[in-house]
Amino acid sequence: MKIKVVSNILKANDSIAEKNRQLFKENKLFVINLISSPGAGKTSLLERTIKTLNSKISIGVIEGDIATTRDAERIEKTGARVIQINTNGACHLDSNMVRTALQNFPLNGLDILFIENVGNLVCPANFNLGEDIKAVVLSVTEGDDKPKKYPGIFREAKILIINKTDLLPYTDCSIDKIKKESLEINPDLNIFEVSCRSGEGFDEWCNYIVSLSN
Amino acid sequence: MKIKVVSNILKANDSIAEKNRQLFKENKLFVINLISSPGAGKTSLLERTIKTLNSKISIGVIEGDIATTRDAERIEKTGARVIQINTNGACHLDSNMVRTALQNFPLNGLDILFIENVGNLVCPANFNLGEDIKAVVLSVTEGDDKPKKYPGIFREAKILIINKTDLLPYTDCSIDKIKKESLEINPDLNIFEVSCRSGEGFDEWCNYIVSLSN
Repeated sequence: MKIKVVSNILKANDSIAEKNRQLFKENKLFVINLISSPGAGKTSLLERTIKTLNSKISIGVIEGDIATTRDAERIEKTGARVIQINTNGACHLDSNMVRTALQNFPLNGLDILFIENVGNLVCPANFNLGEDIKAVVLSVTEGDDKPKKYPGIFREAKILIINKTDLLPYTDCSIDKIKKESLEINPDLNIFEVSCRSGEGFDEWCNYIVSLSN
Repeated sequence: MKIKVVSNILKANDSIAEKNRQLFKENKLFVINLISSPGAGKTSLLERTIKTLNSKISIGVIEGDIATTRDAERIEKTGARVIQINTNGACHLDSNMVRTALQNFPLNGLDILFIENVGNLVCPANFNLGEDIKAVVLSVTEGDDKPKKYPGIFREAKILIINKTDLLPYTDCSIDKIKKESLEINPDLNIFEVSCRSGEGFDEWCNYIVSLSN
């Protein structure tokens, strides 16, 4: 019974996701669903990416949060177009929340749309929002055992961004181990190492984002 | 319809949680449901707490993970009694998973039982396992905006353990802000500041745990 209910919810979600995907396609938008634990640095990654690419491409952001509009306010300061979804307790975005937000969010002129999901390494992996790809952000302070412990999102994602490399000397984390074990789960994963604080690794990451907008 | 299904699930969960609670009571056990984001340091906290209190009280651990037995293996090395629950993808423990695990986990002679939940700051807050209290672990590297952004668990918990204080100098995190904003959500929250790496703050934390076992 429980399984049937969940399967119906996922089916309904997929059908609305398909409509979102169509809308993104009509607007020639590349859409990235950004997923991580709380505090891994999704918003910081967006802030620095937008600032770095400001003159080259136009980036929009849909911000998902359980409560508060703090992340959207941070993005607004970069000058990017942003809208907030508050899930009111729900642990992930779904395609219908995105669809509703899109009614008040013009897509014209945008090259890339990031959808920042709720901070949660588990549930968002199961919900298609109509995006082109999922990207997972993992900070080195979370430890190098996370890919094997939370395999779902590493299987679903096309990109892994390893963040907070500036803190690496103060942790026991091995980036080699993160890479090895995440590639064992998903050999096609495209991996970037960045520090949103120092800017390390942003040249490569931003070049990649520009290439997706073409 | 969706609301009704969720409400039924929570009701069924509460009824089994009550049975767990009865069993814990019969065994004079104090039970702590330990909740945090992935990588905030729940297992490290347990390792150091068990090692510090080894000669004073007897601590048991139920380990909840989506996949792997890595955390249980770490706890086993401390000599503590431990059992692993693998949720096979589920984003939180429920009372029935705990009930099933208890069939193979003798409670005699234990003073304190920790149930380490799946790394997730959202979903576990809603599921009563039969514990006496919930405790939330937040690491300073996650940032000081987390209480307001994930208010559910800060409302439900009786204890907040702020971990990784050794990394504080390398972050923008304000412990005062974490304390202020979490106490605004829950004025009764008992707050500890620790570093599982350096041992800072463990005297106070461990004295508190001993006091719970009486």
